[in-house]
Amino acid sequence: MSTRDTIPGIPRRPPHVVIEGVTPVVDGGRHPAKRTQGDTLVVEADLFKDGHDRIDGRVRVRPPEGRVRTLPLAYHFDPDRWEARVALDAIGRWSFRIEAWPDHWRTWRDELRKRVDADQEEDVAAELPEAALMLRKAAEAQGRSAPGLLEAASALEDDAVPAMERARRVLGPDYEDLVVGPIDPEELACSDDYEVVVDRPLARFASWYELFPRSQAPDGRHGSFRDVARRLPELAELGFDVVYLPPIHPIGHSHRKGRNNDPVCQPGDPGSPWAIGSEEGGHTAVHPELGTLEDFEHLVREAGEHGLEIALDYALQCSPDHPWVRKHPDWFRVRRDGSIRHAENPPKKYQDIVPLHFWCDDREALWQACVEVLFFWIERGVRIFRVDNPHTKPLAFWEWALRVVQDRHPDVIFFSEAFTRPKRMKGLAKLGFTQSYTYFTWKNTAWELREYLTELTTTEMAEYFRPNFFANTPDILHAYLQHGGRPAFRVRLLLAATLSPSYGIYSGFELAENEPVRPGSEEYLDSEKYQIKPRDWDAAGNLKPEIRLLNHLRRDHPALQRLTNLIFLDTTNEQLLGYWKSAPGDDLVVVANLDPFGPQEGMVRLPLGGLDLPVDRPYRVRDLMSGEVYLWRGEWNYVRLDPAERAGHLLEIVREEIP
Amino acid sequence: MSTRDTIPGIPRRPPHVVIEGVTPVVDGGRHPAKRTQGDTLVVEADLFKDGHDRIDGRVRVRPPEGRVRTLPLAYHFDPDRWEARVALDAIGRWSFRIEAWPDHWRTWRDELRKRVDADQEEDVAAELPEAALMLRKAAEAQGRSAPGLLEAASALEDDAVPAMERARRVLGPDYEDLVVGPIDPEELACSDDYEVVVDRPLARFASWYELFPRSQAPDGRHGSFRDVARRLPELAELGFDVVYLPPIHPIGHSHRKGRNNDPVCQPGDPGSPWAIGSEEGGHTAVHPELGTLEDFEHLVREAGEHGLEIALDYALQCSPDHPWVRKHPDWFRVRRDGSIRHAENPPKKYQDIVPLHFWCDDREALWQACVEVLFFWIERGVRIFRVDNPHTKPLAFWEWALRVVQDRHPDVIFFSEAFTRPKRMKGLAKLGFTQSYTYFTWKNTAWELREYLTELTTTEMAEYFRPNFFANTPDILHAYLQHGGRPAFRVRLLLAATLSPSYGIYSGFELAENEPVRPGSEEYLDSEKYQIKPRDWDAAGNLKPEIRLLNHLRRDHPALQRLTNLIFLDTTNEQLLGYWKSAPGDDLVVVANLDPFGPQEGMVRLPLGGLDLPVDRPYRVRDLMSGEVYLWRGEWNYVRLDPAERAGHLLEIVREEIP
Repeated sequence: MSTRDTIPGIPRRPPHVVIEGVTPVVDGGRHPAKRTQGDTLVVEADLFKDGHDRIDGRVRVRPPEGRVRTLPLAYHFDPDRWEARVALDAIGRWSFRIEAWPDHWRTWRDELRKRVDADQEEDVAAELPEAALMLRKAAEAQGRSAPGLLEAASALEDDAVPAMERARRVLGPDYEDLVVGPIDPEELACSDDYEVVVDRPLARFASWYELFPRSQAPDGRHGSFRDVARRLPELAELGFDVVYLPPIHPIGHSHRKGRNNDPVCQPGDPGSPWAIGSEEGGHTAVHPELGTLEDFEHLVREAGEHGLEIALDYALQCSPDHPWVRKHPDWFRVRRDGSIRHAENPPKKYQDIVPLHFWCDDREALWQACVEVLFFWIERGVRIFRVDNPHTKPLAFWEWALRVVQDRHPDVIFFSEAFTRPKRMKGLAKLGFTQSYTYFTWKNTAWELREYLTELTTTEMAEYFRPNFFANTPDILHAYLQHGGRPAFRVRLLLAATLSPSYGIYSGFELAENEPVRPGSEEYLDSEKYQIKPRDWDAAGNLKPEIRLLNHLRRDHPALQRLTNLIFLDTTNEQLLGYWKSAPGDDLVVVANLDPFGPQEGMVRLPLGGLDLPVDRPYRVRDLMSGEVYLWRGEWNYVRLDPAERAGHLLEIVREEIP
Repeated sequence: MSTRDTIPGIPRRPPHVVIEGVTPVVDGGRHPAKRTQGDTLVVEADLFKDGHDRIDGRVRVRPPEGRVRTLPLAYHFDPDRWEARVALDAIGRWSFRIEAWPDHWRTWRDELRKRVDADQEEDVAAELPEAALMLRKAAEAQGRSAPGLLEAASALEDDAVPAMERARRVLGPDYEDLVVGPIDPEELACSDDYEVVVDRPLARFASWYELFPRSQAPDGRHGSFRDVARRLPELAELGFDVVYLPPIHPIGHSHRKGRNNDPVCQPGDPGSPWAIGSEEGGHTAVHPELGTLEDFEHLVREAGEHGLEIALDYALQCSPDHPWVRKHPDWFRVRRDGSIRHAENPPKKYQDIVPLHFWCDDREALWQACVEVLFFWIERGVRIFRVDNPHTKPLAFWEWALRVVQDRHPDVIFFSEAFTRPKRMKGLAKLGFTQSYTYFTWKNTAWELREYLTELTTTEMAEYFRPNFFANTPDILHAYLQHGGRPAFRVRLLLAATLSPSYGIYSGFELAENEPVRPGSEEYLDSEKYQIKPRDWDAAGNLKPEIRLLNHLRRDHPALQRLTNLIFLDTTNEQLLGYWKSAPGDDLVVVANLDPFGPQEGMVRLPLGGLDLPVDRPYRVRDLMSGEVYLWRGEWNYVRLDPAERAGHLLEIVREEIP
């Protein structure tokens, strides 16, 4: 049988080198990895080919603006693994690609060296013209950028010089890097292009404070942006970076909720700020009692002067009084009888809210309008949006909307407030959210914290999911805080502020407010969602000293500004959670007592090798919160923590020799 | 600012449902997963969307021939994970794709049920026309294949019947599956297409025997195919499935190797069969002393009659006397001075072999000729090729060549003889090799075996890398066998035959041949690679009884025919390796003594729950090799193994009640 005419075509440009296992890559390249400006991106790949030839490779990096950069790949300690380090000096969407090729020149030199060493003069003489041919090909392929190639080729063929002498010359260091890149462009193998979104550092490391502007008047009247502005010096002094405001827009009247979520409101009840829109305007208007748009812009500027940023809530839902309901009834779920389908979770009816119908026939105009809201506030200086319940709006909408905004404003941060099943939360993060709320509030035992943080810091999640550990929210007052009281608040603050580089508290946390609306509920009694709640911020027992100290320690210690540098420590008492956070020159050890009801003691184990500590003599650790210094020795050391005194130790290794 | 005209286009057909984490998928779909005919392919995916709507999904499976099959996906026990089971009833290249969509009909019914239960009659009445509209849309989209939709729509709108009664009717079981598939084709989300190569069962489960035909004559003369044919009844009776022959082609004369790899051969030395080609022919010719092509075809037929298959060696290299060297000098690495570069690993020279230059200018003709060799032997009844050193030929060549052959002959098995770094071995398996040699010969301690088998059976490797555990090869006589003698051979046989569904021995193993060419070498003394080696197969102490028993037990026990059904058992003695292999109705427990020098004893732990064994009363286990029955009780039981008696236990759980 002749098969010659029927065998399918031989590939025209088959790759010589296989490129596999490129990192960082999320879902095979479907989504970008995330980094922050100033980071070093470590790109890795497996490169291999058949035979014994040497190979070489490079990474081609396209920054958001400017020229493509080319970096050489270096052989890793793992067999067949290569890596390059890319300085991420600009925010925006980067991409990279791996390229690899057979390194004929170095392969030939290696083999020539062995022949010379074995004194195989005849073979050496036969090999030199081979190399000359290779250099001429390289000169042809690389053109003007390859000086010296033709001269070297001629020298190799100079019969006036004995072959062994020519060989020894070409084995000299001058010839090592004579050929750069592939000699034959056909031999270049390329990976796909992979994206990396580089955010500004605040996306990684920030301390957040959430407050309701209407509660900020000192005298119990309806607070305003001016009242918020008066609190800025205090919040700045406490070391916060971001002040997040629930929706600031006009609040609907229809079916307005009363205090404690009463379906019937009383005269004077302010309603929920999430019931957005009234005859006074919608998502681009300001609630009149808070002030004017100019007042808001003033607040944003004032905050900036205190080193603070204002984050706004982006809640894509409408009260029945929202202007869109009249102007675009087709943007809502209208029944054939003309009635609007309210926010649905039958048989419950949330009649103060009507959800947008993102798949309506006029979808394009609706999606456009939603994005225009973001541009409106961006124009007024806002660069951080906390997005309300993104998991109830189409994932495809988020992928488009976030991309549209960040393509123009790569400094904008989107914070996903989705509390839902794990894969949906991860899905939102992959599709573009800069950072995400987490299950942290529900992780209160040592094993829960270890398990959850291990997932966040050591799995593929670390590439795309940036946690922001809020210790409480207007919706979540966990039973641990309700029952554990002030000691529970202290330990949750310590954990949030040291486990995650981004963390936050909702105002009232510093006063250890912990009364639920009813037993078994995570809702606050007299929730600020439905009423104005003035507070005495300096009430006895407030946690401001600890908050201030922790926020400033976070700023001073690079180890607290990273997520994946976390290593849990063994302890002999499951109520004692120990972990080590490291950064160059900065090793911190936290031991927290998770029992708010009484003292706990036990041993904690330090990895002496990793910490570069002596095994044979004592060393000192200093508690950065109390200033106390302890003399420790060996791996296992004793700790006793009394919640009446403190929530835990935040220990710095003292590097000076003990005199 | 008006952004209306400048915001980039809203996606036209954005997906409603996200499809992620599809399995089985190798390297994001770059390579096919592997299965065998008769397997059930479990396809899984994460499916999720925003909001509370129900979703539904299906898998569309394209078999190698015939119509696309559609199977429904079912919700898995994991949140948001779905699965379908596909019966793989044909060999060849299959593909599958996940499709998912919002299930508006069931969502609507769920909500209606809650409204009916809450007696919200007004809402119920308003909802019924919504459903009627949905059903009419579905009828339009699905055409003739949707009977009853329009009738149901009219019934929903029949105002003569009270709304609550209509609602109760539509909530009845007749209406549950009224709408199948997406109502609006625009709402269909699709994954990529992923491939699965389905091989015949022999690719998964087979016992191999390797022999040199020239050694098979009983009287020491040069053996022939007729002599091999005479051994077939014995090999069949021993329970082997595949007889693999090293190259059967004419052997070169130039620089022929002598005994024990002597660079100078003596008159009468037969040379290495891997020095392929002489004036008598190349890769499509038969070595004259072995017989004729007709003799070979006769051998293949004879083997078939004994239930055996002949596997050939496919070694793409040439002796300097190969016809291709004269006819196609450009297919080799020719220097500018006309000399040929020999097989390279300078300063060593393998002058009996010249490597093919797969990237020569006449590359297409060369690659074609290489594949034609395969078709030549396939025409003569060969369906299994053991491929010599594939890692020294281009990976791109293999991807093309294997595909070309298997597209026409999906029953052809390619067995990769690459002993190289892990990623290159895995790369070859991904690119198409049906099965692969492994590091098994070098894994002789319990922890090495546990670590290696855990990688083979529990990582992504299990999807594409089929190990074939050869216990020895003409190139590998491991020190464990050299020093451990007959007891070592027995335990390695037990391990190979029970750890891996495919295993093999090279002849001489059954005689415990274990003399190396020199201390520290893994080469045999008087290696059969360079000389004829007649043997007395019935010599005292031969292992044929154990081989026969194990091969037949392998055929009787489905648990021994699978790779990934392996679970290691705890033992109290690191010289005792314990594992459990399970298949429906077939649970086997192996305990092997890895110490060939003396008895070892200890406890082995059985997972009673997994094995469905009583915790409160004794049970029996039967040694399938010795027939002995032991009374065991509880998780931990005592084992003592004396290498003078046996290598280990191969235990079957006796399921009958103890009287």
